[in-house]
Amino acid sequence: MIQTLQSLIRQPSVSATGEGIEECANLVHNTLQENGIDSKILHMEGHAPLIYGEINKGLPRTVLFYNHYDVQPAEPLDMWEHPPFGGNIHDNKVYGRGATDDKGELVARIEAVRSLAESDGLQYNVKFAIEGEEENGSRGIPSYLKKYGKMLKCDGIVWEFGYVDNNDTPIVGLGMKGMLYVTLKAQGPKRDIHSGMAPIIQNPIWRLVGALSVLATPDGRITIPDWYKHAQPFSQDEIDIINMMPFDEGTIKEELGVSGFVQNVNTESVKQDLTKVATCNIAGIISGYTGDGTKTILPSVATAKLDLRLLPGMVPSVQSRMLQEYLHVRGFGDISISTEHGQQGIRASPSHTFVQAVRKAVDVAYGRHILNVMYPETGPIWQFSNALNAPCVLVGGTHIHSHMHSPNEFARIDLLEKTASTMMHLLNSV
Amino acid sequence: MIQTLQSLIRQPSVSATGEGIEECANLVHNTLQENGIDSKILHMEGHAPLIYGEINKGLPRTVLFYNHYDVQPAEPLDMWEHPPFGGNIHDNKVYGRGATDDKGELVARIEAVRSLAESDGLQYNVKFAIEGEEENGSRGIPSYLKKYGKMLKCDGIVWEFGYVDNNDTPIVGLGMKGMLYVTLKAQGPKRDIHSGMAPIIQNPIWRLVGALSVLATPDGRITIPDWYKHAQPFSQDEIDIINMMPFDEGTIKEELGVSGFVQNVNTESVKQDLTKVATCNIAGIISGYTGDGTKTILPSVATAKLDLRLLPGMVPSVQSRMLQEYLHVRGFGDISISTEHGQQGIRASPSHTFVQAVRKAVDVAYGRHILNVMYPETGPIWQFSNALNAPCVLVGGTHIHSHMHSPNEFARIDLLEKTASTMMHLLNSV
Repeated sequence: MIQTLQSLIRQPSVSATGEGIEECANLVHNTLQENGIDSKILHMEGHAPLIYGEINKGLPRTVLFYNHYDVQPAEPLDMWEHPPFGGNIHDNKVYGRGATDDKGELVARIEAVRSLAESDGLQYNVKFAIEGEEENGSRGIPSYLKKYGKMLKCDGIVWEFGYVDNNDTPIVGLGMKGMLYVTLKAQGPKRDIHSGMAPIIQNPIWRLVGALSVLATPDGRITIPDWYKHAQPFSQDEIDIINMMPFDEGTIKEELGVSGFVQNVNTESVKQDLTKVATCNIAGIISGYTGDGTKTILPSVATAKLDLRLLPGMVPSVQSRMLQEYLHVRGFGDISISTEHGQQGIRASPSHTFVQAVRKAVDVAYGRHILNVMYPETGPIWQFSNALNAPCVLVGGTHIHSHMHSPNEFARIDLLEKTASTMMHLLNSV
Repeated sequence: MIQTLQSLIRQPSVSATGEGIEECANLVHNTLQENGIDSKILHMEGHAPLIYGEINKGLPRTVLFYNHYDVQPAEPLDMWEHPPFGGNIHDNKVYGRGATDDKGELVARIEAVRSLAESDGLQYNVKFAIEGEEENGSRGIPSYLKKYGKMLKCDGIVWEFGYVDNNDTPIVGLGMKGMLYVTLKAQGPKRDIHSGMAPIIQNPIWRLVGALSVLATPDGRITIPDWYKHAQPFSQDEIDIINMMPFDEGTIKEELGVSGFVQNVNTESVKQDLTKVATCNIAGIISGYTGDGTKTILPSVATAKLDLRLLPGMVPSVQSRMLQEYLHVRGFGDISISTEHGQQGIRASPSHTFVQAVRKAVDVAYGRHILNVMYPETGPIWQFSNALNAPCVLVGGTHIHSHMHSPNEFARIDLLEKTASTMMHLLNSV
């Protein structure tokens, strides 16, 4: 397994630049076949190849592994203590770009499937969908799902990764939030003008500030009526799970340099909020003169980038229309809204049969696990779950501080082995 | 007069870089002396020299001309059709950096004084204060005024320039607004973080938007109670003058690409607002990710630069304290405020003896004039007027489209002559 990971790391596959993507697709295809997994390379015009793998023993149930073979760019190169495409081993760690995200996770799964297939222990048919554009927005996935949905049919999906926390406790994630990303723009005079004109010419920053201030409180809580209308309610089970999650308030405050949390006084409500609040985050705002010193202009244009995290049930296009209509009603119909992208959120029930099977497998491998109802992050998880009508679970061996997307990314060998073992227990469970 | 202007233009004097400042100070000093005006070069540690000129005939009244010999940088050089320091003449125009701002105005005044002194027609003692840092913030002026206030004593000040409008009608300006320039800053986590944390970590943009939205309406009208408390009321005379000002609504709308004016339906109220409204203009705002495409972060810091134009009577330090206290009262005590600079506004009475004398002189030279109660711009005009206890009038030959601060700056020769003539009529009036 470790040698396989090293050979995958040594094949660069940077989706942002296209470097080595085709070569890595072939390498993954060969790796599957060498490990006894039927494989084919699927193509979609304008997109990286998707590798499909399968062991179909005609069993009643099927697990699909979603992974990706592309990686983030290795830059900044001078910050690496080990070559980014070297796959060097030091002290229980394999170093290199993609070591943990996502080549390490992939080899652990392949290893589990190979080993079980050889001993005839598979209790599930197994499928792999290994894409090559995850780090670049997974833009081909909707088309691949549309074309190959039938082939990918399954009873449960294991998402590309799962976290292992600071105390080496594995976290089983049940979902991710969705997102609506929009740009708001207010238009003033056709060029920046002398601010002496401010008494009579509309300043677009004031317009934008006005529009933003009707969307949320200064604490960032959304004030658009019915914003949560389509959100699926949380079950008591889920609320209990959130309360059971460890949450090291002191470390987070120190790490982020904040003295308190928004609107909250105690740890319990902070934890509930992290999962249950749909945010309207302003990721960026810019207008006018922003350099050193002072300049007195009335700017021409003001823009803000908003990432609105959605709860499962909330559909980006519907929420975008609500946003637009609300701004209009509040007298800000002049603010233009362009939707950059959207993604639905989803969460699986903690008591779903497949989720239970995963939880049991993790407990056998690690002796314990934590549940996470829904990460506050966003990914194309709803697309798979919805297209294949199957629950999706995030489980794997990604150490929470494994330098993903950063220099000196590594995978811990003991966690790779634990992950392989977890997957074997899952695929072997009856 | 034109040759003198050409030689002044040919001596670069860029206060931003210091290029030629000392040389130009000497040239101005010599020019005054060659024109029969006693002159000395005053120095102040860390500041450009101030040239003091004087013809003291022991007359009962004294006029002070405030001008400056420094210029804006000539860049961008490739946009000039004539050399920026060439002083070339084409079609009634002298081209070059400083041609109109402020070397042209200066030579017209010197010419008037020389000519009247030669014919023994001076009815006023004459003083000149010609500084070398105007384009760089006039930072030495308070010290010079403090040290040399007695020497500069006068009955009326003629400010560095005065506009001549599109129809060649001279505008006699009676004052300028003041300004308080502040930077507001909201602090979030100590570094940009993943926006998934938005439910529990305060986003500083939301804080800043919240603070801004209590300061003014989305139309930019200040809502701080008592903001206008110290503003001097406008007299009926002043209100009448504002109504008499020409205002080409269609041209302004087309020029600025706007379809209407803030809060106003008719020309009359727009004109009143331009003079009477104290603005809270946001000159710039920035936070978070402002590049192409999308990025989902919760930023660390958000800042806004505000230029608040003040009416005469309003003192920057007092208004700054009001701003600070009001933000505190409204629950935004966490927003830091740093005052970048402040300047009081001032306006002279249209019926003051000295103002009347200026108006009469302009009428003799041009046959007509327009009054402007107070420009919406800001300059160190209050400092002079207050330190010398004398009214200040803006009158000169600066054509409104003479490319000041831009490439191909020019002075119209006919307007220089008219300005010299205006000044002669003023200094000769009894």
